[in-house]
Amino acid sequence: MTELDRDACEELDAEDPLAPIRSQFVVPEDLIYLDGNSLGVLPRAAPERVHEMVTTEWGEGLVRSWNDAGWFDKPLTVGDRIAPLIGASPGTVVVGDSTSVNLFKALIAALRLRPGRNVIVSDADNFPTDLYMIQGAVELLGGPERRLVDATAGVALGDVLDERVAVVVLSQVDYRTGALYDMEAVTRQVHDAGALMVWDLCHSAGALPVALEECGADFAIGCTYKYLNGGPGSPAYVFVSPGLLGSARQPLTGWMGHARPFEFTSDYEPAEGITQFVISTPPLVAFAPLEASLDVWEQVSLDDVRRKSLALTGLFMDLVDTRCPEVEVVTPRAEPIRGSQVSLRHPEGYAVMQALIDRGLVGDFRAPDLMRFGLTPLYVGYADVWDAVDTLRMVLESKTWREPRFQQRSQVT
Amino acid sequence: MTELDRDACEELDAEDPLAPIRSQFVVPEDLIYLDGNSLGVLPRAAPERVHEMVTTEWGEGLVRSWNDAGWFDKPLTVGDRIAPLIGASPGTVVVGDSTSVNLFKALIAALRLRPGRNVIVSDADNFPTDLYMIQGAVELLGGPERRLVDATAGVALGDVLDERVAVVVLSQVDYRTGALYDMEAVTRQVHDAGALMVWDLCHSAGALPVALEECGADFAIGCTYKYLNGGPGSPAYVFVSPGLLGSARQPLTGWMGHARPFEFTSDYEPAEGITQFVISTPPLVAFAPLEASLDVWEQVSLDDVRRKSLALTGLFMDLVDTRCPEVEVVTPRAEPIRGSQVSLRHPEGYAVMQALIDRGLVGDFRAPDLMRFGLTPLYVGYADVWDAVDTLRMVLESKTWREPRFQQRSQVT
Repeated sequence: MTELDRDACEELDAEDPLAPIRSQFVVPEDLIYLDGNSLGVLPRAAPERVHEMVTTEWGEGLVRSWNDAGWFDKPLTVGDRIAPLIGASPGTVVVGDSTSVNLFKALIAALRLRPGRNVIVSDADNFPTDLYMIQGAVELLGGPERRLVDATAGVALGDVLDERVAVVVLSQVDYRTGALYDMEAVTRQVHDAGALMVWDLCHSAGALPVALEECGADFAIGCTYKYLNGGPGSPAYVFVSPGLLGSARQPLTGWMGHARPFEFTSDYEPAEGITQFVISTPPLVAFAPLEASLDVWEQVSLDDVRRKSLALTGLFMDLVDTRCPEVEVVTPRAEPIRGSQVSLRHPEGYAVMQALIDRGLVGDFRAPDLMRFGLTPLYVGYADVWDAVDTLRMVLESKTWREPRFQQRSQVT
Repeated sequence: MTELDRDACEELDAEDPLAPIRSQFVVPEDLIYLDGNSLGVLPRAAPERVHEMVTTEWGEGLVRSWNDAGWFDKPLTVGDRIAPLIGASPGTVVVGDSTSVNLFKALIAALRLRPGRNVIVSDADNFPTDLYMIQGAVELLGGPERRLVDATAGVALGDVLDERVAVVVLSQVDYRTGALYDMEAVTRQVHDAGALMVWDLCHSAGALPVALEECGADFAIGCTYKYLNGGPGSPAYVFVSPGLLGSARQPLTGWMGHARPFEFTSDYEPAEGITQFVISTPPLVAFAPLEASLDVWEQVSLDDVRRKSLALTGLFMDLVDTRCPEVEVVTPRAEPIRGSQVSLRHPEGYAVMQALIDRGLVGDFRAPDLMRFGLTPLYVGYADVWDAVDTLRMVLESKTWREPRFQQRSQVT
């Protein structure tokens, strides 16, 4: 790999079966955008789809669109389109609300299915909103307790699983390091301990093939605005295993999860199946770009995505090793435990990232010292990786990140 | 009023100070749209605003828009724009999530502020999602109990208020009848009983001046897609009284309500003030049409809105009395207790409404026998009311609603 040059990268692009997909996205020409693990780029068809939604479905159709444009069923129909991307059957996924709210639904439903147990396990490195939502549930309910796996402190999953654990919540891919959990093995381990498993797919759905049902996952949640390109704050989803659909009961019992919502009775009665996990009126305008993105997703093979993702991340790490030895690669080298991002450690990571963005290479920074680069196979190519590492090398060599303007902190995501 | 004819209605339109506002909305020419109490019409500037949001802020700006386009603060900045419409100070309202989810936040926060009490009071006629969410919270927490005011059963608010009541949840305007609660008197009555008051403003915000702080309301929630024209499923809001902002604690503790979200610590610490009521990434594309609508709202006086609303609803009821005596007017005649809709009872209300829609008059139906007509002063005029009642008279006289095609039920909202 070390002799690779830019021409060789261009050749890899020429042979890439996913290369033609890039034209279906708007990728700003002045940028190397390696932050699709935070916010995916705009599907080219999205503006027209949104315009149609706004002007025709809403503007002309008005309330008639609840029936005529399929608004009422949108959480289910779009859920059925996400299902194949995460290894789920039709009728097991609904779209709506945020990832955090969907975690709350799944968490409480899981706790209720394990009445004699009251410990919720997660990972200290899990995305903070998951940890905070668990903490909020623990404080609300009084009884349960949050217990964290913590690699830094040498606390592994096996150390915390016991007969008190009701549910384990883990992100399949670590948002900081890009490390990938073995979904099948972990789910089995959790089940062997008698607990239920909730997977957070925010950093894995659209980045690699996810096999929820094959791995026996009980619940899953995820956003749609990272690898799935649904747009900023696009609606999240929740999956419930077919075997639990009859018994799982979520606590945010809004009228659209009612068995007969239009009878407007005063008592709640849960709808059958996954519909019960819908709360209320879906944010329909925000569904439109997601639907445009799913049109693209239906054209690609997730095996191709995974193959290219591993090649891109591998290339990125190899190039960093040889050309930027002063930064530490944090992302796992072993392919089976690697997601679709590369994280680099640098003591001045924040300033370095600002200097990179100033030169058109967009990644992001996670405190205290991690620079993240998301490799999104649908619209990032091998030459992009070459150019990215080239930019990184230039910034590190020239030390432009020492300029005061790059040191000043602002809110970033 | 009974001698009024269409010409007289046109004269009223000519003198209407709000008449010029109508051109800022898209009102389909072939419709008399009296369903803005369910879904408001499209602000004319919304498609362009949405397009800019999607193509420029998202497509070009990408993650940089979190800072550059003010995405991060959107729940707060848009909240501050809604505040004056509901009698709230800046820094007391945040926008995001659904009405149901915001009710859950307010409800739990209120329960926690009244630790020795565990009864939640609502009205059997409240919009069902409120009743269902209360029921969900009661089942989740085990201890609390739901108690309902029920006019049909002769149970008034005074009958159910006692020292066990922690919180009362009421809709300011009844979604079925259009009856308006006296916010000040009811809030005082609830406070006198030692409980906290949560107002649901879904059917009052944008329909009349709401004076939350003047009336001493503790919490309020509401949607933005009815009178506020934010678009189907546009984000809802929650208000917390300035006096409670220091002590109120909501349970859905996501990362954007954290005191320092970008430190990514594993323990939650609530942000100061209303920010704590934000959960997570806001649905930004869905904010765009709402912002376009708020541009219009900033041009109008809510006193003008209220004056016209009462005139329109009064005219509607008078015309129905004289021209359609076979239907019963359910909406209160007295102005102080009337919202901005007129509800009519007809045993075949469903079929009659379908026949009306077929003739271009769009209202909606609520089981078992209510036809609702929303009078939205920003884009409905006096001649529209004349034409609406004229259409109703024709449909009732000709009995076209008896046609089988109008009898067949479908999902409606």
